[in-house]
Amino acid sequence: MPKPKKANESLTVMTEMVFPNDTNTLGNLMGGNLMRLLDIAGAIAAQKHCNRIVVTASVDNVQFKEAIPLGSVVTLQAKVTRAFNSSMEVVVEVWAENIPAGTKVNTNKAFLTFVAVDQTGRPIEVPPVEPETEEEKELYAGALRRRQLRLVLAGRMKPEEAIELKEIFMV
Amino acid sequence: MPKPKKANESLTVMTEMVFPNDTNTLGNLMGGNLMRLLDIAGAIAAQKHCNRIVVTASVDNVQFKEAIPLGSVVTLQAKVTRAFNSSMEVVVEVWAENIPAGTKVNTNKAFLTFVAVDQTGRPIEVPPVEPETEEEKELYAGALRRRQLRLVLAGRMKPEEAIELKEIFMV
Amino acid sequence: MPKPKKANESLTVMTEMVFPNDTNTLGNLMGGNLMRLLDIAGAIAAQKHCNRIVVTASVDNVQFKEAIPLGSVVTLQAKVTRAFNSSMEVVVEVWAENIPAGTKVNTNKAFLTFVAVDQTGRPIEVPPVEPETEEEKELYAGALRRRQLRLVLAGRMKPEEAIELKEIFMV
Amino acid sequence: MPKPKKANESLTVMTEMVFPNDTNTLGNLMGGNLMRLLDIAGAIAAQKHCNRIVVTASVDNVQFKEAIPLGSVVTLQAKVTRAFNSSMEVVVEVWAENIPAGTKVNTNKAFLTFVAVDQTGRPIEVPPVEPETEEEKELYAGALRRRQLRLVLAGRMKPEEAIELKEIFMV
Amino acid sequence: MPKPKKANESLTVMTEMVFPNDTNTLGNLMGGNLMRLLDIAGAIAAQKHCNRIVVTASVDNVQFKEAIPLGSVVTLQAKVTRAFNSSMEVVVEVWAENIPAGTKVNTNKAFLTFVAVDQTGRPIEVPPVEPETEEEKELYAGALRRRQLRLVLAGRMKPEEAIELKEIFMV
Amino acid sequence: MPKPKKANESLTVMTEMVFPNDTNTLGNLMGGNLMRLLDIAGAIAAQKHCNRIVVTASVDNVQFKEAIPLGSVVTLQAKVTRAFNSSMEVVVEVWAENIPAGTKVNTNKAFLTFVAVDQTGRPIEVPPVEPETEEEKELYAGALRRRQLRLVLAGRMKPEEAIELKEIFMV
Repeated sequence: MPKPKKANESLTVMTEMVFPNDTNTLGNLMGGNLMRLLDIAGAIAAQKHCNRIVVTASVDNVQFKEAIPLGSVVTLQAKVTRAFNSSMEVVVEVWAENIPAGTKVNTNKAFLTFVAVDQTGRPIEVPPVEPETEEEKELYAGALRRRQLRLVLAGRMKPEEAIELKEIFMV
Repeated sequence: MPKPKKANESLTVMTEMVFPNDTNTLGNLMGGNLMRLLDIAGAIAAQKHCNRIVVTASVDNVQFKEAIPLGSVVTLQAKVTRAFNSSMEVVVEVWAENIPAGTKVNTNKAFLTFVAVDQTGRPIEVPPVEPETEEEKELYAGALRRRQLRLVLAGRMKPEEAIELKEIFMV
Repeated sequence: MPKPKKANESLTVMTEMVFPNDTNTLGNLMGGNLMRLLDIAGAIAAQKHCNRIVVTASVDNVQFKEAIPLGSVVTLQAKVTRAFNSSMEVVVEVWAENIPAGTKVNTNKAFLTFVAVDQTGRPIEVPPVEPETEEEKELYAGALRRRQLRLVLAGRMKPEEAIELKEIFMV
Repeated sequence: MPKPKKANESLTVMTEMVFPNDTNTLGNLMGGNLMRLLDIAGAIAAQKHCNRIVVTASVDNVQFKEAIPLGSVVTLQAKVTRAFNSSMEVVVEVWAENIPAGTKVNTNKAFLTFVAVDQTGRPIEVPPVEPETEEEKELYAGALRRRQLRLVLAGRMKPEEAIELKEIFMV
Repeated sequence: MPKPKKANESLTVMTEMVFPNDTNTLGNLMGGNLMRLLDIAGAIAAQKHCNRIVVTASVDNVQFKEAIPLGSVVTLQAKVTRAFNSSMEVVVEVWAENIPAGTKVNTNKAFLTFVAVDQTGRPIEVPPVEPETEEEKELYAGALRRRQLRLVLAGRMKPEEAIELKEIFMV
Repeated sequence: MPKPKKANESLTVMTEMVFPNDTNTLGNLMGGNLMRLLDIAGAIAAQKHCNRIVVTASVDNVQFKEAIPLGSVVTLQAKVTRAFNSSMEVVVEVWAENIPAGTKVNTNKAFLTFVAVDQTGRPIEVPPVEPETEEEKELYAGALRRRQLRLVLAGRMKPEEAIELKEIFMV
């Protein structure tokens, strides 16, 4: 097994401007274009963790709470939270800034998973993640529950076997 | 309340070719680019249902099971499943075809939600959906459960109150 | 000779949104961008008919009668009309929809020809087309006349030898 | 009526490189992308003639005789041939160059028509064209015949009334 | 005069992947595409410093020492070095990483200047820059010399009056 | 040594329209996008001179004096000025035209250098340049001085050894 790496070593910061062609009829960033940025930022973070080519395996539920208007500066911060054999969960936080107006809003927090592959596309084992900060440890712990939800949604785990997930509904 | 419309009236078919710039290092369609197509196809279906401008509210968990190589023909089929006041759930199915090889694979099934808005961006009520086929009725029924999951994930509903969702874990 | 295929097997539906960068100074879809979509839709239909790589051989006269404004939904429907050895004629119909306004206009009907080729770019024989509906039969019949016009315009047929075409002018 | 302008005053030269995303599966420039360039070059030439905003009215039959591989340099040369009230016919010639190989091929000669419009999109009269060279005079003369063909194809002129065009078939 | 801001408050990190369409015939990032990224990163840093819309005023000599192949991760780090009335000098450093190979190379260090403008495009005074680290202080000091070079190259200062610059050649 | 070629044989004219996605918040062409065009035009001129693949080696200081609004026609004219072993200096002049308004402004004059390489990326000797017109001869002579400045800025020549450049400051 590859030796563990710190969560923070995969930290990736991406800053983008919202251009006219990225917007919808109301002049705001289209959801699909933000998804595209999430995927690129997440893939770079996953690559940094495993030093391998990676492919996207899944994107968890993403909610768009804020309109991000043309000309905004969008900052994405991605970091690997936990690894499972050949797959890695990455968290991506998004902020949208209207610099002339002096506003900066946290617009999204998304979880994506990536699989490390060799040149022929076959999965390869990746290093375990070593969380250091409180936040990294919480993300590391929650990764198990989010993974069970993905497996249940993919029909690859029975809901009643998703122990971690089940507890939430059992109060 | 606007008068109900049939699910099928929103049917949207989108066919795309995978171009070089859409691909990753392995020559396959990048996950983020497929997300972008899901969003556009879904938005058109939602627009057809409500005859309004729509904005993306959420994308449910999407899983990428199949690599879609350069030159493939990607077909997306989107349809509104159910409406809730000003929001609509849309299901998008994706097929990837390697035409010279004669193969066609169902690669994704994704749920997105859109909100109908007026020119100033304020939500507007949309028509209820009238499901007709067996499949449409199942999608209509399941929409409630998927909606609860979205609300729980967004921290806007307590897990123990998500009745429909809870039942799944209670066997 | 490959065995005949029905015209309808090549049916390809493509739905696109008009984005800011697709428009001209007046905010309408540029003619050249619509041509690009015609070519992609047509190529996919031709590929579906012959299960081969195809290259564009010609585009017949295209007339732009209607302005298609930013935010419109453009639907293209392509179908092979007739095959000649290694080449196929494809008809592409275009509709532009302003969904919030509830209008849908038939904006274009274009004929393109494609040639099926192998990996080295050499032409390969394609299946004959079997028209079924009245409309398909008419398109099949007219293909001969349109082909003569193409050959005359390319200087590869003398006008006086274009029997089918000549009749039109001889009333 | 605006005063006549020389054909040559509208001369527009456009040089482009073929980038990866412009190519098809065989690594050659896609027909639809060349159409897009024809439209832009033609529109600039038409603008230069009339000093107005212009919109594409039609593209005549275009034939693709040569494959233009990735990395080629494509040169387009556009010039107004003749004006008819508010519309202008433009001829665009295309050359493809493989500079390292020292080859340059004339790949296309296309005719497009554009209409001059005001800011509200209404047609505006344009200056007559004054051809000077032998080639310009020939193009000027032939414009009438090509115009009749366009009108016949658009169903706006009966074939038997297309005098200029008819003569070609009457030998 | 607006009150001074620390150099570091404008720090902007941008991470990009090299996609197929960004590359030249040899499969490496085209110089012009890197210039485009320098401009975007620099503009965001300048915006952060002055909280205004900014326009590019100049780009100093940029040298491309290293090929950056397809699939590389490019990191740009931009920071304002010094302000002069309404203009700001920004330094942008670029690193190219081949993550699977574990290599990271400093490929460029570029200086750009931006001008803060109001909505009508008129220049507006910006805050002075307060350098803190040794490196920031050196960049601050050198900005004067680089500014003189720009003015000389623009023909707006006589070489013999470029005191700071002249000294370099006087040893 | 390859035999000399005339400066004019490399002349490259490029005409582009400013599209929505090329613009900044004020609706004007972004500096970085103009840099990208300079690079493409310059690379084609360099290729024409040496009939080889070329890569960008440097871009000299570029100053943006004029705003170029959406819808403008941008003309770039590139020509090789002088060769040094495997590298070539190219001058690119830029004009921006508002055709409906009848205005045409010379907006930029930039110098770029390119290196001729073989398929493996190794530098190859290029033909000397033969200037003919007065302007070409002046550009040829000045190339030496500009080259020294590039070497000084790259830290590859001591300022006091840049004889040609030094003289300018010694009045």
